[in-house]
Amino acid sequence: MATSLNPTLQPQRTIDELKELRALTGNADGAQRVAWTDTWAKARAWMRDKLDQLPVEVETDEAGNVWATLRGQSEKAMLIGGHLDSVPNGGWLDGCLNVVAGLEVLRRIASEGTPPVTVRLVDWADEEGARFGRSLFGSSAASGTMNPDDLRNLTDRDGVKLVDAVARFGVDMNCVKDAGRQLKNAVAYLELHIEQGPVLESMNLPLGVVLGTFGVERHAIRFVGQSAHAGSTPMNQRRDALGAASKLHLEIREIAKRNGGVCTVGRVETKPGIVTAVVGQCDITLDQRHLNADALATMLAEAKAASERFAAEENVSQEWTRLWQIHPILFHPELIEMADEAVRETCGQVHRLPSGPLHDAAEVARAGVPTIMLFVQSLRGLSHAKEEDTKEEHLAMSVEALDRLATRTMNWLAGKG
Amino acid sequence: MATSLNPTLQPQRTIDELKELRALTGNADGAQRVAWTDTWAKARAWMRDKLDQLPVEVETDEAGNVWATLRGQSEKAMLIGGHLDSVPNGGWLDGCLNVVAGLEVLRRIASEGTPPVTVRLVDWADEEGARFGRSLFGSSAASGTMNPDDLRNLTDRDGVKLVDAVARFGVDMNCVKDAGRQLKNAVAYLELHIEQGPVLESMNLPLGVVLGTFGVERHAIRFVGQSAHAGSTPMNQRRDALGAASKLHLEIREIAKRNGGVCTVGRVETKPGIVTAVVGQCDITLDQRHLNADALATMLAEAKAASERFAAEENVSQEWTRLWQIHPILFHPELIEMADEAVRETCGQVHRLPSGPLHDAAEVARAGVPTIMLFVQSLRGLSHAKEEDTKEEHLAMSVEALDRLATRTMNWLAGKG
Repeated sequence: MATSLNPTLQPQRTIDELKELRALTGNADGAQRVAWTDTWAKARAWMRDKLDQLPVEVETDEAGNVWATLRGQSEKAMLIGGHLDSVPNGGWLDGCLNVVAGLEVLRRIASEGTPPVTVRLVDWADEEGARFGRSLFGSSAASGTMNPDDLRNLTDRDGVKLVDAVARFGVDMNCVKDAGRQLKNAVAYLELHIEQGPVLESMNLPLGVVLGTFGVERHAIRFVGQSAHAGSTPMNQRRDALGAASKLHLEIREIAKRNGGVCTVGRVETKPGIVTAVVGQCDITLDQRHLNADALATMLAEAKAASERFAAEENVSQEWTRLWQIHPILFHPELIEMADEAVRETCGQVHRLPSGPLHDAAEVARAGVPTIMLFVQSLRGLSHAKEEDTKEEHLAMSVEALDRLATRTMNWLAGKG
Repeated sequence: MATSLNPTLQPQRTIDELKELRALTGNADGAQRVAWTDTWAKARAWMRDKLDQLPVEVETDEAGNVWATLRGQSEKAMLIGGHLDSVPNGGWLDGCLNVVAGLEVLRRIASEGTPPVTVRLVDWADEEGARFGRSLFGSSAASGTMNPDDLRNLTDRDGVKLVDAVARFGVDMNCVKDAGRQLKNAVAYLELHIEQGPVLESMNLPLGVVLGTFGVERHAIRFVGQSAHAGSTPMNQRRDALGAASKLHLEIREIAKRNGGVCTVGRVETKPGIVTAVVGQCDITLDQRHLNADALATMLAEAKAASERFAAEENVSQEWTRLWQIHPILFHPELIEMADEAVRETCGQVHRLPSGPLHDAAEVARAGVPTIMLFVQSLRGLSHAKEEDTKEEHLAMSVEALDRLATRTMNWLAGKG
């Protein structure tokens, strides 16, 4: 009993199964489990075979999420969730680590007989949104935040409509939100994920506890000056749209540092965009994230004020268009403490950090279910690429920590009566 | 004799003829006299009709340049040159003002009998390079700076080879440099052009004398950092390729001001170029221009040093690739003085300025022919656009000034014996 909470948990089996799945659904370019494709269906059939060997009931809900239920002494349910779908040419761990590790935890719990609460493993449908540009499909249908009308006209690159692609998998867009009933008895949600960032690696820590997901402000900003000949226009007579953009880019990085968040200009487009012309129009994107809603609002206000100032300095106009916005979602304080203990018990040290990327966990939390996430270290912070990787010893620890967290959570739920 | 040097010069005729040419070869989108096209041929046929009414010999040389020669008492030749070709959707004056004003000056000189020196009007072939991306075609063939092998594989957007397009106009790429013989007896070259910049308008002056054409350093700069998730990568762990680019862009503007030249970043490209990713690779273009070769070298050295410093600050790599380079070309000191006097006599005031854009005049000067240019004010500095315009009273003054300059130059040449 020295290294593992329960002798029947086999973290190495999770690693082996992840490799099995990689061989089955990946190629030289990486994972190819894009949702609503045959390869995704193959991954799900593979998982179904594994689940069929356990004393669980398996069902697919109205949004295409697959649920495996191990009945407990109480109908109250602890959920463990992830997603088998990947981006094209994706990594071998993003999403499926959660499902495959959850499978191992489910095995361990099932091997001990009827648990005090019901335990459910969920494979969310289309977390990545890689094909239709709409992420968190299944979890947002279940949480109720999805507006199906926003999705009806989405098409993929080949012009196939989302409505038709999901119908092939038995999903009727008129009924997707009926998946919400799956959360009725949910009283806790656990999700393990690779960090997809460099923080744990830079601290030399295997595991972290996630405090919540960042709130996001995403904007497109257009500066319009006057295109002019690079040779014939003196410096003091220019209205250089790129001038305002360059200043704003450097300033948003200071705003992020000052407020403890992250700010990114990820795209710059210049028009006419030729070597011999002063930039007449410059379009940039701005992405700002913070775990604290007030700090996020401050970052946005500071960026807007700076943009206005720089536009005036450069004698150009500026126009902001909001692309997307989400409030910070904080995870459950008691689950954070339990996760902290589970990680310490597994590897001695823990770090608490926010999640930059969104996850299905955020949708479950928005539905009011007490939620927590564990992060395992990502090598070089890479994800959504075939180079995505995590040391096997860290993967094994992550399965152990998830298992310990599951036990603590079940005890906590049972204790609440 | 109060307003014009010679009563037979009719500047209004030049304006009328420019409008005639516009009606014949333009449309609602602007001038369409792209070299090596039927519309260009139409413009040249129109000009040929005008020339046929004068006592001149007309010939087309091996590079497609059209020469109209008025024999003088000496074989030594004063050249007046311009180009009828335009960019697509171009302005009504760029290039053709020179040719049509030169036609009027030629008429005036011819009406007075045999001039002391030979006078030749040249319509250079393909100054703009709009179709094949190679400007100054005819003048560089004549000056000898063209390397025909560099042009053999150029194609237009439709895949048509330059070699074939010019052959349709009787130009054989194996013989283009034979056009150089046209410059054998040339002892002066005069060119009138719209400014294509805002300087004269900002000083409220109709006309300017051009000191020479800027030397140019044109480079592509690539910064490579690390693309990373905009949400999961803390600010202090980023290698933001755009950071170095933004800093360099702001710095090259200061370098230009400090050294009295112009520097432009005209194009920025970001990769992966999405709202949710830190920029991993950023490509920018840099264009630097100065009339003084040492100052141009200083501007380049300062930009390179700054780029290196910023790359180090941002922990990214940098790579410079020279796209093009040309030394400053200074016009002839005595012709500058004569042009100054001709402009003062025409409108009382004059300003001397460098030319940012290159012109055929630069090629002629490189061939060792004493060269001078006059600029007439451009409204709002616009060119290469249908909005390009100049006040008619300024156009009339420009014809008068060119005519006065021609007379002074002929007297100067005759005096030199």
